[in-house]
Amino acid sequence: MRLARTAGELKPACWTYNSPAGRPLTHARKRLHFSVRYKNAGVDINAAGTLKKNIGRLARSTFNERVISDVGLFGSLFSLKGYKDAVLVASCDGVGTKLTVARMVGRWDTVGIDIVNHCVNDILCQGARPLFFLDYLAASRFPEGVVEQVVTGLARACRKAGCALVGGETAMMPGWYRTDDIDLVGFVVGVAERKKLVDPTRIRPGDVAIGLQSSGLHTNGYSLARKVLFSKARLKPGSKVKGLRWPLGAELLQPHRSYLDEVYPVLGRLHGIAHITGGGFYENIERLLANEVSVVIHKKAWRPKRIFRLIQELGSVPEDEMYRTFNMGMGMVLFASPKSTPSLLSRIKNARVIGKVVRGTFGVAVI
Amino acid sequence: MRLARTAGELKPACWTYNSPAGRPLTHARKRLHFSVRYKNAGVDINAAGTLKKNIGRLARSTFNERVISDVGLFGSLFSLKGYKDAVLVASCDGVGTKLTVARMVGRWDTVGIDIVNHCVNDILCQGARPLFFLDYLAASRFPEGVVEQVVTGLARACRKAGCALVGGETAMMPGWYRTDDIDLVGFVVGVAERKKLVDPTRIRPGDVAIGLQSSGLHTNGYSLARKVLFSKARLKPGSKVKGLRWPLGAELLQPHRSYLDEVYPVLGRLHGIAHITGGGFYENIERLLANEVSVVIHKKAWRPKRIFRLIQELGSVPEDEMYRTFNMGMGMVLFASPKSTPSLLSRIKNARVIGKVVRGTFGVAVI
Repeated sequence: MRLARTAGELKPACWTYNSPAGRPLTHARKRLHFSVRYKNAGVDINAAGTLKKNIGRLARSTFNERVISDVGLFGSLFSLKGYKDAVLVASCDGVGTKLTVARMVGRWDTVGIDIVNHCVNDILCQGARPLFFLDYLAASRFPEGVVEQVVTGLARACRKAGCALVGGETAMMPGWYRTDDIDLVGFVVGVAERKKLVDPTRIRPGDVAIGLQSSGLHTNGYSLARKVLFSKARLKPGSKVKGLRWPLGAELLQPHRSYLDEVYPVLGRLHGIAHITGGGFYENIERLLANEVSVVIHKKAWRPKRIFRLIQELGSVPEDEMYRTFNMGMGMVLFASPKSTPSLLSRIKNARVIGKVVRGTFGVAVI
Repeated sequence: MRLARTAGELKPACWTYNSPAGRPLTHARKRLHFSVRYKNAGVDINAAGTLKKNIGRLARSTFNERVISDVGLFGSLFSLKGYKDAVLVASCDGVGTKLTVARMVGRWDTVGIDIVNHCVNDILCQGARPLFFLDYLAASRFPEGVVEQVVTGLARACRKAGCALVGGETAMMPGWYRTDDIDLVGFVVGVAERKKLVDPTRIRPGDVAIGLQSSGLHTNGYSLARKVLFSKARLKPGSKVKGLRWPLGAELLQPHRSYLDEVYPVLGRLHGIAHITGGGFYENIERLLANEVSVVIHKKAWRPKRIFRLIQELGSVPEDEMYRTFNMGMGMVLFASPKSTPSLLSRIKNARVIGKVVRGTFGVAVI
């Protein structure tokens, strides 16, 4: 059973008491009756019944004047008025096994923030600001409060990004997932004027690589992190480790930082942007580079947060693999001319020079 | 581990041999080395390695002049040139437990078609035609050939809909799913000129309900169908049942029909469109109706396909529940004036009058 949500009035699901146009109770009763019977097929309906109002309220808290809310029915409507040569930039990502940490800790709002900020950062790399976001949530069953917590996180991050949470899909598929794990996927659509797109072919030898501090692992590398920390080292989410500010679980759940507010105003001065996600420094910077252009990252330029070194030490993970798997404390890398660099550093919080662009065909070297 | 795909060059994943800018082999080797080590954390990397080229080819087969393919890096880019007052219409849906049938049968292309057509029909209800589509595919592990088959189906349906498959995410999360099941989610963005949006407040007493034949169950009701057919009646995907054209598994996998080609040209004459998905006739028609407007559906107007009656008989499912759960052979319902109806019936294949709009507050009655 899947509960779709759409901008405007939320799509009425078959377990609700209230029909969209306020049908009388007799009709509503029939619908409830149906619900009970359908439940026999293994679909847990009541569990989600009371959530709908809360979810609707949270979603509406993100709406802006571009959301056309009075006719949203089977799809979510969004106006593009005011753009001259609009280019849409879309991205889709999942939270992955960071969700397992959320389950272990029993906290679900931060992963909502994670997926929004991950998606927002991805399209920011091309110069777009987010217009709207849709989520997909799936589980065998949703423990009480989980959906509200996730949507609370989604809505908070969407409001902060000026992005409308216009809809989504909540799927209950009994027996599908092995544990109480849920899956959470985000879709974002942003917009940019075509001539303001960030064009990485402008990256040239002599440019500076500016690293922007991450808040932690962000949303990547959790398979390896969990293996090392929980399976191999037998630590627990509640474990307090010297040098970590929070207990291990909370440390791992630090939400993915959004760079939108700081980077969007300076887009015009950037030659390229890499969001350091799966694949670490290598994969994410390499794809920006044309032939004969390579990047040297100086790892001495910053000290990775303790959590990264902890994983490395406990897992005896080779240094090279660390920089291929994790962001190592730098969640985004900007490329700009040396001339622009001082003003960028002064405008962006927790930014520093971490490398440079050189002539060469080696791609990315972390030295 | 998650493999993102983005329009233009597909986002290079960390398991590929070829870097985007054609780095020399020494560098590629390093990456492979990494892969093998990361595999120890339970992420099966080689399994997906060879797929990437095929997926890229399939995705590119759907591109049109609106896809800005030369700079697609972290997000997928799409031009909106030529629209005056563009409204974006977005929708997100999953295939749900129809995927279990796909696994039982061992065929994965049809579910790709399903999710595209489901999404395309959803936004068609508001008058939009699809611009682009992104998919999310997740599994504990992908048996050989599954991802290609799914993407083959996605690409075929996208080409047919004139919709670009601009990206997606393929997530391998070992231990996450109970069986070899995969999850498949689609996300579509379409566009309409604002004044051409279908406006269901135009539905008024006297209007005609025109049903468009479905190809089968489409993408809803599979929890109930599987329970009845496989658990209760102990049928097998290979079972041949009198009156069914194909063996049971193939019958259940009939792809969701797209109504785009037939309905889009006549949008201007429609007062409302309901896509009959989860919630059947009741939920999906009801949400179009204003106060004092109700709809009577005459079930004698057509004979549901044999598969629906089979489920009903074997499961002793109450008649009412059938029309609340399944499309019963009508996948889309159009509302139009009696004057427009004859020409609509002559232009749309397999369409017939199945009911009418009346004054009343009961909502939807199926009699």
